[in-house]
Amino acid sequence: MSGLLRLGLCGVGTVGGEVHRQLTEHPDTLAEAAGRPVEIVAYSARGKRPEYRAEYFADAAELAQQADVDAVVELIGGVDVAFDVARSTLAAGRHLITANKALLAERGGEINTLLRQNPGAWIGFEAAIGGGIPVVKCLGEGLAGNRIRKLSCILNGTSNYILSEMFDSGADFGSVLKQAQELGYAEADPTLDISGGDAAHKLAILASMAFGIAEPLRCITCEGIDTLSVRDFRFARQLNCRIRPLAVAERIGDACDLRAHVALVPEGHALAGIGGVMNAVHIQADPVGEVFLSGPGAGAGATASAVLADIIDLATGRARLQVPKRNADFALLDAGLRESTFYLRLDIPERNRPGIIAEITALLTEQQISIRELIQHGECDVADHIPLLVLTDPTREGAVRAFAEAVRARSDICRELLWLRVEDEAR
Amino acid sequence: MSGLLRLGLCGVGTVGGEVHRQLTEHPDTLAEAAGRPVEIVAYSARGKRPEYRAEYFADAAELAQQADVDAVVELIGGVDVAFDVARSTLAAGRHLITANKALLAERGGEINTLLRQNPGAWIGFEAAIGGGIPVVKCLGEGLAGNRIRKLSCILNGTSNYILSEMFDSGADFGSVLKQAQELGYAEADPTLDISGGDAAHKLAILASMAFGIAEPLRCITCEGIDTLSVRDFRFARQLNCRIRPLAVAERIGDACDLRAHVALVPEGHALAGIGGVMNAVHIQADPVGEVFLSGPGAGAGATASAVLADIIDLATGRARLQVPKRNADFALLDAGLRESTFYLRLDIPERNRPGIIAEITALLTEQQISIRELIQHGECDVADHIPLLVLTDPTREGAVRAFAEAVRARSDICRELLWLRVEDEAR
Repeated sequence: MSGLLRLGLCGVGTVGGEVHRQLTEHPDTLAEAAGRPVEIVAYSARGKRPEYRAEYFADAAELAQQADVDAVVELIGGVDVAFDVARSTLAAGRHLITANKALLAERGGEINTLLRQNPGAWIGFEAAIGGGIPVVKCLGEGLAGNRIRKLSCILNGTSNYILSEMFDSGADFGSVLKQAQELGYAEADPTLDISGGDAAHKLAILASMAFGIAEPLRCITCEGIDTLSVRDFRFARQLNCRIRPLAVAERIGDACDLRAHVALVPEGHALAGIGGVMNAVHIQADPVGEVFLSGPGAGAGATASAVLADIIDLATGRARLQVPKRNADFALLDAGLRESTFYLRLDIPERNRPGIIAEITALLTEQQISIRELIQHGECDVADHIPLLVLTDPTREGAVRAFAEAVRARSDICRELLWLRVEDEAR
Repeated sequence: MSGLLRLGLCGVGTVGGEVHRQLTEHPDTLAEAAGRPVEIVAYSARGKRPEYRAEYFADAAELAQQADVDAVVELIGGVDVAFDVARSTLAAGRHLITANKALLAERGGEINTLLRQNPGAWIGFEAAIGGGIPVVKCLGEGLAGNRIRKLSCILNGTSNYILSEMFDSGADFGSVLKQAQELGYAEADPTLDISGGDAAHKLAILASMAFGIAEPLRCITCEGIDTLSVRDFRFARQLNCRIRPLAVAERIGDACDLRAHVALVPEGHALAGIGGVMNAVHIQADPVGEVFLSGPGAGAGATASAVLADIIDLATGRARLQVPKRNADFALLDAGLRESTFYLRLDIPERNRPGIIAEITALLTEQQISIRELIQHGECDVADHIPLLVLTDPTREGAVRAFAEAVRARSDICRELLWLRVEDEAR
């Protein structure tokens, strides 16, 4: 490979601007790593248009169709326009580098078809998952000789920041979210982050890489982070746990379990130490055992670093030699059969008549749920409820769901029930 | 790339045996990742010879010269025979995959010359550093668009195990070493691990990758782990620190600082959480910010995983597209100019006459060393000495060395002095 690598940059916001800055301010770093010069020769911007020494296109899709480039770097986000850009790029046999997890997770099937139809084209997506952590490179190449057992990740910095702040400050969800928005850690519309949807997008891509699952997104159990109350953070602390937004892909026998949800993580677990906007990926695999990666999950510099890695792989020619994972036929694990320890918080009416705990434990026994720890604090908590905490022994999720249903029908013994999974290290 | 990739395996000990097992028991995993079948067609073994379906060579160098292979996997260790194997392999234009850090660190110059003379040949060494952690891949490709500022690592599992055990159990160096040998974590001759030499070998390779330093090994300040007493672990705990065997490569202005030594690491620092035989690499770089990697630093499965990654890179053709780092002219940082916080432990004679602390602090003042924390415990410790602990403010190492010299000339005020660096997070 030699000669200039010509790039078209779609989107010059925070990340796009940083990619441009790295390429123009440090051309030697890039050229040395890439073995050839790299240049942005065309760009498109919505809104404010910076003055770059490159051809300007008002429209990203137009750039993808018309610009004379080797590769298009798509950093506009969203799904619809981005897909138009991807289609035009790949259909012309050119390469696509993208940080767009929603695009890959939601339109991955169509993109794979385009790649099959245009075997000269390649797609790089290191920046779509884990920000600056080279997780795609590690999983796809560095651990390529392994059979993956489990990926336990924190993939959404916004929700990790919110949960960390709630844990540290004792503030409630609404005020921490507002603060995250003021600091630029959360979008004006935070739905995708808070619902687990963004983490699910990233998990879908990792699951497809690790297990060859064809349409992983629809297989993911996805739960939001907004169900927790301030009390749950205090209780988690008493149980020597942190609260983290996890994304987990696990092979269990011939089935695969995919889930994005809040969980209690015991102190000492590698993911307990990952707070704030940091991301992390804990990989269990054979023969390596386990590998842990962490780093900034977002931000201009971190994301630009990942985009640059893809550009370099493209420039050296390494990119086109990546071997795509074949689709594998995994059954989806029945969610009811998931086994873990569970945290149950039951709000008992204040007028705590004798026998309530006996009734609750009887309902647990009915579902064969064994209690590891039970704590009833004397004082009232919110409203006129007394919280009762139960930490179970490893139990099937189906039993917990059945217990929850039974308890929720009994407002005389429990006004509210929250259950969360506890991510044990030893599984 | 297609057709069979033919490998010659030199050394069928723990790691070599595991590589063979992975290739024979999971040929599909490998063939899928590699895009073509991979087979060990020749092997050599010293001592007990396993029955493999491949051509046997009694001598590794003979295999490297005569076997009809595409690549030689060198897992025999040591430097002299391994270098013969490397030379024969590369001189024949064949590829070399090795886990041998001593070979690369000590004979790296000659190996680079061989590579230049035989441009068709490639050398893969993912397994030489950090066991199963894909650190070579991350640094060389995943973060290739970055300018590295600092690598802070734990690269020797044996010394990390010993220091962790001393911290946790309060046992002394000799008995923990003996236990490590019984568990197979330390060699019968543990010199290379305990002296920091093994960590220095690995650091040399990383420094050459990160900074393009031509002969890094001779630039490394290398200190052993056997100078600490049981008391230092107790004191570290009081200071809310762990004790870790660090390997650090840092760019400071136009100079480079390379050092392998024991240090106090404050709880909360990423490396504080890495105990036992685990390894870790903390990378600070621009634009990514920071990335942290950890995993098993040794063991059959972990090392085999790294060897397999190199085999797969070779099979796909990605390997030959790696762009070697150009040698750069870095000045070596004058060790005296290194700045950090220091831990000083002074053993004061029991007959603690009035004025000793005044004299010691006067000697500190002479060197412009400012005290952050000073602790004198009332009770005697070993022999008839009273330990005095000083934690300094950030200070140049030259000042600490001068203070140490001054204090050591004054046995009336100090019978023994140990100083250790404290690896602060904020630098």
